Amino acid sequence: MMKKIEPYIRAVNYYETDQMHVVHHSNYARYMEEARLDMMSQIGLSYDKLEEMGIIIPVLELHNVFTHAIHYGDIISIQPSLTKLTPVRFSIHYELYDAGTGEWLNRGDTSHAFVDRDFHPMNVKKRFPEVYEALLSCLAEEEKA
Amino acid sequence: MMKKIEPYIRAVNYYETDQMHVVHHSNYARYMEEARLDMMSQIGLSYDKLEEMGIIIPVLELHNVFTHAIHYGDIISIQPSLTKLTPVRFSIHYELYDAGTGEWLNRGDTSHAFVDRDFHPMNVKKRFPEVYEALLSCLAEEEKA
Amino acid sequence: MMKKIEPYIRAVNYYETDQMHVVHHSNYARYMEEARLDMMSQIGLSYDKLEEMGIIIPVLELHNVFTHAIHYGDIISIQPSLTKLTPVRFSIHYELYDAGTGEWLNRGDTSHAFVDRDFHPMNVKKRFPEVYEALLSCLAEEEKA
Amino acid sequence: MMKKIEPYIRAVNYYETDQMHVVHHSNYARYMEEARLDMMSQIGLSYDKLEEMGIIIPVLELHNVFTHAIHYGDIISIQPSLTKLTPVRFSIHYELYDAGTGEWLNRGDTSHAFVDRDFHPMNVKKRFPEVYEALLSCLAEEEKA
Repeated sequence: MMKKIEPYIRAVNYYETDQMHVVHHSNYARYMEEARLDMMSQIGLSYDKLEEMGIIIPVLELHNVFTHAIHYGDIISIQPSLTKLTPVRFSIHYELYDAGTGEWLNRGDTSHAFVDRDFHPMNVKKRFPEVYEALLSCLAEEEKA
Repeated sequence: MMKKIEPYIRAVNYYETDQMHVVHHSNYARYMEEARLDMMSQIGLSYDKLEEMGIIIPVLELHNVFTHAIHYGDIISIQPSLTKLTPVRFSIHYELYDAGTGEWLNRGDTSHAFVDRDFHPMNVKKRFPEVYEALLSCLAEEEKA
Repeated sequence: MMKKIEPYIRAVNYYETDQMHVVHHSNYARYMEEARLDMMSQIGLSYDKLEEMGIIIPVLELHNVFTHAIHYGDIISIQPSLTKLTPVRFSIHYELYDAGTGEWLNRGDTSHAFVDRDFHPMNVKKRFPEVYEALLSCLAEEEKA
Repeated sequence: MMKKIEPYIRAVNYYETDQMHVVHHSNYARYMEEARLDMMSQIGLSYDKLEEMGIIIPVLELHNVFTHAIHYGDIISIQPSLTKLTPVRFSIHYELYDAGTGEWLNRGDTSHAFVDRDFHPMNVKKRFPEVYEALLSCLAEEEKA
């Protein structure tokens, strides 16, 4: 059975706004990173521990659609979900909501590789099967190959 | 004839790195913004002046492909190009190079709307035809409708 | 009686690290801002509401002592305290701890003015006595003139 | 004779503003870092090379006085000067000007230690006398012990 991931909730910080009076768009990459690392913690994969084990997870690709602006004073809720997993890569989709009203605001996607400390590709399924299994536990059935 | 846009060149800042020893990926949205606003200055559209005129240009969508990492000490060169222009929207493509070696590193895209101070859509071709014309001057012939 | 301010607790974000493998020092200004605005919320002064009322609170001076580095994976606790209040200015002191171990890490100070939307000085005690009183409620007795 | 340090000049970026319509104060720590590393490059000390040699230079203390706000569209000029140098520490003072008008805007100070990769104090005068001499070359006569 698929492990349910709790949404990541946080307040918007003042310093994240710009003179357009909205959150500067570069912060969404940061919000998605926070939500992604929180999701990994929920399945027992603290990223500081992974880096200690020698597993580095850079971003290969990032996509954001900014349908609604967000503002200082807002509380946002980000629901990440694993959409793809191979022995060497994975992808995450993010839905961003207003945590107060429940209104849907924006969405994003990131894709990632597993690499070692020298940035060489790593087959994590072989090298660290328990890490691969933990990720697999939150992949939707319909996404499994 | 199409106006040639000079590339935007800048050094990587130390504070843009993270503990992976590379530039954190959220900075590319910022680099692209710098290159975009520099491009607009080159065609006579200083963004601070546009905001004073009441033209606000938010980002609607952003996409980045991170093929190569960049590092503190690198000098990067970003070549922006206008890929689409309508009376209410435009899109820009960015190619990022190592300014020292000329090596291609990464690419990105952003798309934008023209809105007024209340974030209502604005037909810039009607309201500010000289702004539209300036942008049109750097649109490649093959992209013109 | 003096109102007790609860400490502000938050996790360190990955994107706040730099290639020295510690939190980049520019983030402390941001952490202090988060703790300051949280402190103000605790006494009924949400800063988004203050700005709507036309009260702007810029930083006049900032000081940080970085005795210990902090790292991704750490949870920090910041205890702000109001150290000075006049009708036109105030100052806040911050003590930063490791929220897990209770170990003291760093400290900082900021001072602020009340200004209007045109950045002209504002006597907040006269113009908004309820705002002044709320701040006064968390000033230590020994700091009162 | 004392080596003259050229000022560090750069444009303010849009993403450095906040909804107060000024540069967010946390960026000054970054501007000072840029000016400091540029100053070190001017005397032959590229910080990426220093880190490769095992010399790490964390910030111990930071102080900023924000007399004037700065805005998107401004070009700023920062004049750093070495105010103190010992075998294990140094301090830098920064004066920030409007590069267009020459108007003085703000000032700041940082102090630093030399440490090794494990963050243990390093006597740089003993370990890397050429680094110490390069720094000494830009210390004002009246600051020399």
